[in-house]
Amino acid sequence: MDQLLAAVDLGSNSFRLSIGRVVQNEGIAQIYAIDRLKESVRLAAGLGPDKRLNQEAIERAITVLKRFGERISGFHPDRVRAVATNTFRVARNVAEFLPRAEAALGFPIEVIAGQEEARLIFSGVANELAPSANRRLVIDIGGGSTELIIGRGYEPIRMASLYMGCVSYEQLFFPDGRITEARMEQAQLAARREIEAISRQYRQTGWQEAYGSSGTAKGLYAILTESGLSKKGITLAGLEGIKAKLIHDGKVVASSLPGLKPDRAMVLAGGLAIMLAAFHELKIKLMMPGEGALRMGVLYDLLGRDSPHDKRDETVRQFIKRYQVDTHQSLRVKKLALALFDQLDLAGDEKQELMRSLSWAADLHEAGISIAHADYHKHSAYILAHADMPGFSNDAQALLAWLVLGHHGKINKLRAQESTRAQWLTLLCLRLAVLLSRRREDMDTLPLKVSANHDTISVRAQTSWLTNHPLSAYTLRGEMTEWGKSDFKFELVEAA
Amino acid sequence: MDQLLAAVDLGSNSFRLSIGRVVQNEGIAQIYAIDRLKESVRLAAGLGPDKRLNQEAIERAITVLKRFGERISGFHPDRVRAVATNTFRVARNVAEFLPRAEAALGFPIEVIAGQEEARLIFSGVANELAPSANRRLVIDIGGGSTELIIGRGYEPIRMASLYMGCVSYEQLFFPDGRITEARMEQAQLAARREIEAISRQYRQTGWQEAYGSSGTAKGLYAILTESGLSKKGITLAGLEGIKAKLIHDGKVVASSLPGLKPDRAMVLAGGLAIMLAAFHELKIKLMMPGEGALRMGVLYDLLGRDSPHDKRDETVRQFIKRYQVDTHQSLRVKKLALALFDQLDLAGDEKQELMRSLSWAADLHEAGISIAHADYHKHSAYILAHADMPGFSNDAQALLAWLVLGHHGKINKLRAQESTRAQWLTLLCLRLAVLLSRRREDMDTLPLKVSANHDTISVRAQTSWLTNHPLSAYTLRGEMTEWGKSDFKFELVEAA
Repeated sequence: MDQLLAAVDLGSNSFRLSIGRVVQNEGIAQIYAIDRLKESVRLAAGLGPDKRLNQEAIERAITVLKRFGERISGFHPDRVRAVATNTFRVARNVAEFLPRAEAALGFPIEVIAGQEEARLIFSGVANELAPSANRRLVIDIGGGSTELIIGRGYEPIRMASLYMGCVSYEQLFFPDGRITEARMEQAQLAARREIEAISRQYRQTGWQEAYGSSGTAKGLYAILTESGLSKKGITLAGLEGIKAKLIHDGKVVASSLPGLKPDRAMVLAGGLAIMLAAFHELKIKLMMPGEGALRMGVLYDLLGRDSPHDKRDETVRQFIKRYQVDTHQSLRVKKLALALFDQLDLAGDEKQELMRSLSWAADLHEAGISIAHADYHKHSAYILAHADMPGFSNDAQALLAWLVLGHHGKINKLRAQESTRAQWLTLLCLRLAVLLSRRREDMDTLPLKVSANHDTISVRAQTSWLTNHPLSAYTLRGEMTEWGKSDFKFELVEAA
Repeated sequence: MDQLLAAVDLGSNSFRLSIGRVVQNEGIAQIYAIDRLKESVRLAAGLGPDKRLNQEAIERAITVLKRFGERISGFHPDRVRAVATNTFRVARNVAEFLPRAEAALGFPIEVIAGQEEARLIFSGVANELAPSANRRLVIDIGGGSTELIIGRGYEPIRMASLYMGCVSYEQLFFPDGRITEARMEQAQLAARREIEAISRQYRQTGWQEAYGSSGTAKGLYAILTESGLSKKGITLAGLEGIKAKLIHDGKVVASSLPGLKPDRAMVLAGGLAIMLAAFHELKIKLMMPGEGALRMGVLYDLLGRDSPHDKRDETVRQFIKRYQVDTHQSLRVKKLALALFDQLDLAGDEKQELMRSLSWAADLHEAGISIAHADYHKHSAYILAHADMPGFSNDAQALLAWLVLGHHGKINKLRAQESTRAQWLTLLCLRLAVLLSRRREDMDTLPLKVSANHDTISVRAQTSWLTNHPLSAYTLRGEMTEWGKSDFKFELVEAA
C-alpha cells in the first residue's frame, strides 16, 4: 500500500498543506504531491508594533488550520509534520496562540529557526528539480523572512535567513498601498542592506542556476510572461518594468499587470523591492520559478526519519566534533542514562522521542567545556539553545538545552520552565548517569535501580555498594536533597 | 636604576603586598621580592548566606588596603597590579565595595577568574623553583577557592579552580570551632566530591613533584616538622596525625600543635579537610611547600606586559583559531577601527588601554558565528564574557564583551551598563568600522572623519562619496538614528 505523508507550512503570508505519496523507485524513495491546499492568511500583517499577533489574525489562522485539520484527521502523528516560520518566531504572544492552533489542526506544530527553514526549502526545491551537478541559488521571499541558499545536489553550501518579507515590507514602506519612487527606493535600500552582509561570500561561491521558490517569485514570473515584459524568466529588466508600472500607477492596478493573482496584489510592491535588491546585490542575471519549497522539504525530512538518515543524528555528530566532546565520557554517560531510562515505566509515544533526546543530551552535555569549564553546563545549554541545529525544531532544541542545563547542580534553576513529568524523569536519568560517571571511569554493572510512582522517585542501591562507595553515597544523598526542592519526592532505598 | 614592581593579592583569607625588584640576568629578567606585607583579613568569613559581604569585613579590608596604599603610593600605575579572587568573584555587593577598596589602595583592583588565578599561581611557584623538566603539581588552598595545576617549566598543562577554601569550609563544617570525626568526614567527602571530577585526568597526566603554595600548606608543613609527625614534607600519615589530634582535642589547641601560627588556628580544620581530600583523590605521596604563588605570578605577568610577550595577545590569537574567525574580515575591521580611533582626541592613560581593547574586540567580534550566524554579536559577547581568557581580568573581559555586543544592531541594549564616555567613543569606532566593512571588501581610503566634542559626535563624509555609495549613506543615516537613542548627539556632516 502506498504511504501518505502530510506537511503543513504555516508561513507569514500563506498557510499550505501538502499531502505526498511515497513511491519506491529502484530502492529510492520519492514523494509525489497528491493534494495541496493553500490559503492566504497574511499572518505577519497581524503583528502590531508591540510584536503581538492581534486577535483577527489569530482567528484567520485558526479557521484555516481547522480546515487543514479536517483533511488530515485520520493520519498517524508520525506521518504529519507541521512547521511554522518567521511570524511564529517573533510574535511575543505565540505561547498563548500555539496551543489553540495545535488543537485546531489536531497535530503538534513546530516553530523552526531561519537556518532550518533555509535547509528545508533547499531540500524541497532540489528534490523537485532534475538532478544536476550545478550549484543552484534558491531565494525564497516569504511573508516575514527571506531565505537565500546556494547548494549542489541536495546539500546546501551556504544558507541565510534574513529578517525581511513581502508582508512586513508592505507594512513598513507601503502601509497605505501608495507606491512612489522614493518609497520603492527606501524599501530597496533596506533590503540591500540586509543582503549586503552575505553578497560577497555568495558571489564568491557562485552558482549556475537561480530559482525563486516563493509566491513572490511565482507571481512576478507570471506577470512578466503574461505581460510580455520577459519571455524566458525573471530578469532585472523585467523587474524594472514592473516597478515602473507600479510607480506610474501609484498603486497596484490589476489591469496594468496581466498575470497578477488577486491574493498577490496586496504584497506585490514589498516582494518586488526585495527581489530587486537581491538582483542588484547578487548580480543575478536570470531566475526561474522553483517548485517544492518548504513543504516538500518537510515531506522529504519526514521520510528520512524512518530511515537510518535522520538529519538530527548527523547534526549531533557534527556538534560532537565541532565542540571537541570527550566521547569516552559522553558514551559512558549515554549508556548509563539509557539503561536507567529503560527501567522507567513511561508511555509509548513520548517515550521514543524522550529516549532520543536523552541520548543526544548525553552526547552533548559537555559541549560547553569548549567555552569554559566553570559552569560548563550553562555554556552547553547556551550553545544548544542558540546554535543552528539542522533537523531540530525550536522546541526540540529547547528540550535538549533544558536537559543539558539541568544535568548538574541545582535543580531549582529549572523551575521557571514548564516541563512534563516524563521530561523530569528523563532528566533524572541523565543526572544519575553523570553522577555515576564523575570519576570518568567505566562501571562493570549498573549499581542503581530507578522507578517512579506518581511523584515519588525511588532509587535503589545495595547497602554493600553504598558502603564501599562512600563518595557516591554522599553524592546520592546530595541528589536526594536536591530533588527535595522539586515537585518530586525522592527516596533512596538501601537493599541488603 | 632598578625597576620596582608591586603586586597586591586580595585573597579570601589574607591580603598580601609584594614588592619586587627586576634584575636583568644575561638578558633574562628576574624578580627578587624585596618587601612583603601579609594581613589576615578573613574576608570570606564576612560573606553572609545572601552572598553579601558584611560591613565589618569590608572595614577590615579597607583598613588593610589603606596601609598597603601608603607603602606603594609613589608607584607608577603601570608598575602596580592588584588582583582579587574568590570572595570578590562571588560577593553580590562587590560593585558597592570595590570603588572604596580602590580608593583606599590608590590603584585599580582587578577581579580575576579562577582559571586565571590558577595560571598566575603556577607561574609564581614555577618562577621561584629551580628550573626542571619535571611535571609539577601545585595545589593552592585559598580562603574561598582551591586551585590545582599541573605544569612543566612555566607552562600549565592542566588547571582547575574549585569552589572550596579553608575559610568557607571552616564556616560550613566547623561553624562553632568544634571538631568531631563525623564533621571531618563530611568536610572531606565534600572536598573529595569537588576533586573527583578532575582526579582521573590529573592522575593520567601525572607529575613528579607536588607543591602546596598557600598558607594552609605552609601551616601544615610547619606543624608536621615542628611536632615531628613528618620529617621530610607533607604526607598522608602526617596529615592523619594532625587530624587525630584535632578530633581528640575537639578543637584547635595550640599546645598540641607546635609550629601552629595564631592566625592559622581559625582555619586549620577546613584547610586540613581539603588537603586530606586532595591526598586521597589524587593519591599524593609527598608534598613540599612552594613559594611565590599568586603574588609572584602577578609580578611576572606585569613584567611581561612591557615585552612583546603580553599574555593577552597570545590568548586572543588562540581564540581567533579556536573560533575560526575570518581573519580577512577581522583585520579589515581592526585597521579601520584603529584609524578612526586615532582621529579621536582621547586622554593618554585610558587611551592606550582602550586602543588595545578595541583591537582585541575587532579581532574577536565575529567569534560567535561559530555558534550561529543569527544574533552572532550576542554569541560573541557570551563567549567573551564566560570563557577563560588567560591574562585578562574580569573587567577587561567584560569590556571586550560589551564592545562586541554593541558592535552591531541596537544601541539601547547596552544602556543598562555603566560605561565611560571614552568607552562609548571606542564603541563608535568599532561600529563604524564594521559598517564600512559590511561588504567584506577592502577600502582604498578611509571615507569618514570622526570627532567628538563633549557629547556630540561628528562624522564627516564627502558628498560625492555619499552619492556614490547610497547603501553606505543609508546605513550611516541609520547609525545616526541609533545614536539618537543614546546620551550622545550624532551629526553626519557632508563636505564638498
